[in-house]
Amino acid sequence: MAFLDELAAALPDGAVVTDVDLLETYRRDRTDWLTPGQPQAAAFPRTTAEVAAAVKVAATHRIPIVPRGAGSSLAGGSQAIDGCLILCVERMDRILDVDEVDQTVTVEPGVLNAHISEATAPHGLWYPPDPASKAFCSIGGNIATNAGGLCCVKYGVTRDYVMGLEVVLADGTVIETGRRTIKGVAGLDLTGLMVGSEGTLGIVTRARLRLRPSPDGTATLVAFFPTLTAAGDAVAAITRAGLGLSLMEIMDRTTVVAVDDAYRMDLERDAAALLLLQSDSPDPLRGTEIARAAELCESSDATYTVTTEDAEQADALLQARRLAIPALEQQGTTLLDDIAVPRSRVPELLGRAQDIAEQRDVTIGSFGHAGDGNLHPTLVVPRDDDGTVLHRALAAFDDLVLAALELGGTITGEHGVGTIKAPFLEQEVGTANLAVQRRIKRELDPLGLLNPGRWL
Amino acid sequence: MAFLDELAAALPDGAVVTDVDLLETYRRDRTDWLTPGQPQAAAFPRTTAEVAAAVKVAATHRIPIVPRGAGSSLAGGSQAIDGCLILCVERMDRILDVDEVDQTVTVEPGVLNAHISEATAPHGLWYPPDPASKAFCSIGGNIATNAGGLCCVKYGVTRDYVMGLEVVLADGTVIETGRRTIKGVAGLDLTGLMVGSEGTLGIVTRARLRLRPSPDGTATLVAFFPTLTAAGDAVAAITRAGLGLSLMEIMDRTTVVAVDDAYRMDLERDAAALLLLQSDSPDPLRGTEIARAAELCESSDATYTVTTEDAEQADALLQARRLAIPALEQQGTTLLDDIAVPRSRVPELLGRAQDIAEQRDVTIGSFGHAGDGNLHPTLVVPRDDDGTVLHRALAAFDDLVLAALELGGTITGEHGVGTIKAPFLEQEVGTANLAVQRRIKRELDPLGLLNPGRWL
Repeated sequence: MAFLDELAAALPDGAVVTDVDLLETYRRDRTDWLTPGQPQAAAFPRTTAEVAAAVKVAATHRIPIVPRGAGSSLAGGSQAIDGCLILCVERMDRILDVDEVDQTVTVEPGVLNAHISEATAPHGLWYPPDPASKAFCSIGGNIATNAGGLCCVKYGVTRDYVMGLEVVLADGTVIETGRRTIKGVAGLDLTGLMVGSEGTLGIVTRARLRLRPSPDGTATLVAFFPTLTAAGDAVAAITRAGLGLSLMEIMDRTTVVAVDDAYRMDLERDAAALLLLQSDSPDPLRGTEIARAAELCESSDATYTVTTEDAEQADALLQARRLAIPALEQQGTTLLDDIAVPRSRVPELLGRAQDIAEQRDVTIGSFGHAGDGNLHPTLVVPRDDDGTVLHRALAAFDDLVLAALELGGTITGEHGVGTIKAPFLEQEVGTANLAVQRRIKRELDPLGLLNPGRWL
Repeated sequence: MAFLDELAAALPDGAVVTDVDLLETYRRDRTDWLTPGQPQAAAFPRTTAEVAAAVKVAATHRIPIVPRGAGSSLAGGSQAIDGCLILCVERMDRILDVDEVDQTVTVEPGVLNAHISEATAPHGLWYPPDPASKAFCSIGGNIATNAGGLCCVKYGVTRDYVMGLEVVLADGTVIETGRRTIKGVAGLDLTGLMVGSEGTLGIVTRARLRLRPSPDGTATLVAFFPTLTAAGDAVAAITRAGLGLSLMEIMDRTTVVAVDDAYRMDLERDAAALLLLQSDSPDPLRGTEIARAAELCESSDATYTVTTEDAEQADALLQARRLAIPALEQQGTTLLDDIAVPRSRVPELLGRAQDIAEQRDVTIGSFGHAGDGNLHPTLVVPRDDDGTVLHRALAAFDDLVLAALELGGTITGEHGVGTIKAPFLEQEVGTANLAVQRRIKRELDPLGLLNPGRWL
């Protein structure tokens, strides 16, 4: 039987889409500046058995599979490749179980990140990892990329919250990994291996996640600095002081001005950098921590600081950070980078970004997670560009990645290697390490059908 | 050339030991009740190149390798097997670098756990994972087993602190894994795969670890309960309240009485369970947290509670827990188990342990990490036993492991599968999962030379 016939026969009515117009949405992710390939079909399973059935049919016909959650990748991780089957788990969107005592939640991969904490809030519980895209990214994609977020500086990343998985392997076998206990060391950590494997080793069909008791309030601080180094000094001093801040974000002048231009927020347009800090520790500790952070900012030459424990005022302050991407997008098409360096090198990386902007004659707005050294320098290409600026922007993008490596950093802090960082991976991890990764990939997916054309 | 000649030629003078008397120490770990095999030699490399050279010689001659740190395994993880080469890293004991700003330390595998925090304390930094054996276990072994400890309930386990590794693979290839940044998602998580692999995938020769700012004090609480369920209720209530306790230990009556018999500590001998709780949060939060924990214990029917913020008094209270093993050892040879269940099932598991003790007619003292459901029921066999009690104790040991599985738990919370839990692994992880583990093992160690006879 032909592939599409066999696939349609293996899945319920309506689970396979081949219409080119309908596929248009599903062949793209949010890496706008890449051109996706043309898939031959998209499958929308509702159960693990349906995922396994689709994988088996694809394997029989040697059809490459591009797994897809909500398609919010910024690294080309879920862009279609020519002739592929898109295996989209968006209809597997049930929250299966919330356990109050053991503080866990069991979910299907298509559940949106923000929906998890909404569902667990009535139980006084919360799922910490919070990508900026949390309203429209899925937990399946979060697991595939080991996604980060704003509060990771205190609470860690996706991998720290995944206790166990159900995974469909390349041959359609279903395995369960992990455990129900907080601790456990029984055998190789296949859970951790699957997290961050970007759909190249298997397709996650269910996940058991750890939760935490919801914080009951926040204290927030915004501080402006005359130089990048001063902002970096403040971050270092706050880290050294062991203040348990739950958010430590930075924005450079280009980003601050873009936000102020677009939204008239009365920001200090002359400042070289803005730090946005928050504590969600129990009252009154959060107030103490933020007051101490403000002191440390001031002794690092902050020109202006403002603090609040009021939720609405805090939201208003956080808006400046949330609006960074939309504000830069008002100036053109954006190429969002995702690099990380040791915390101590953040000011240096921000300085390099400014140098690169000058050398390549492009606009770069830098912002990101200062507390863990993870930045998103964002290149802006005017919408009426004839390709000239894009060409320079792509060169600048590569310069930024190489600068991160030079500073002892990584080519991707939280978005994944995907398509766009694949050329740099060997330089970061080394030939012998990459060879081991490829041996594991080949052993688990000998036909190379799972998300090919990425790094493995 | 014969194996031993080639090995001696490949390593510096004094690095290879074949004397049977000298080997006696190195063929054993702390799993006293197992009989180790007879190695043909032990190698004591001082550098990565020497480890690689020894591995290559062993591979050429198809000699199995048993990697060894400090030999403190309680799971038979570093017991010699007949004819093996013991590859002992105890001479690789240098702390290479402490980075105050990025809060990292780089160590060789033979460094003892406690030495790390001693070396970083002058920098105001601390390495959290704290096995009870921290004075005499090595970081290499901690990494091999993904070791836990007392403060894991707040701070997580070894894997959460390993940022990067240097590893010698089965063919002598050296790879580096991980990164220098807090976050990073470049490629498969080989670091996490190596952590907990118990020497079956490679030999760790260097590790970069995360540190935390040292806490500046503690508040401590001891509470006695009339029933196991009451103690379990208190743990659940404290967890639900989101108190950030850094220690939540439990001891059952058998253990409490053993400690009181041996050391006359004036403990409540009638209590069914003792909880030992500590907060290391900043002052004054720690006092608030422990006061709230005391209230929650009292409303869960605690018969007696005592709290202190004095370091010496706290040490005295912690002694009861630290003396659990020595006290039980005064009664005979101990078989220490290591099982974990979802936190909610702890009272049930303790009850099962009592039932098993009765049914099998053996003494079982249970204690452990209540906060993360990880218990160490310990069987006591009189020293003059003719084998009869040992036989019953081994049966009880298996009963305990199966009870943990029945309650949704794991066969090992922090000690590793080693030799003694190998028969239970497939039952926990499933046939398909274990097959994947074996495929990875076979791909990375096709000759099966690294720590054979364990679970892979």
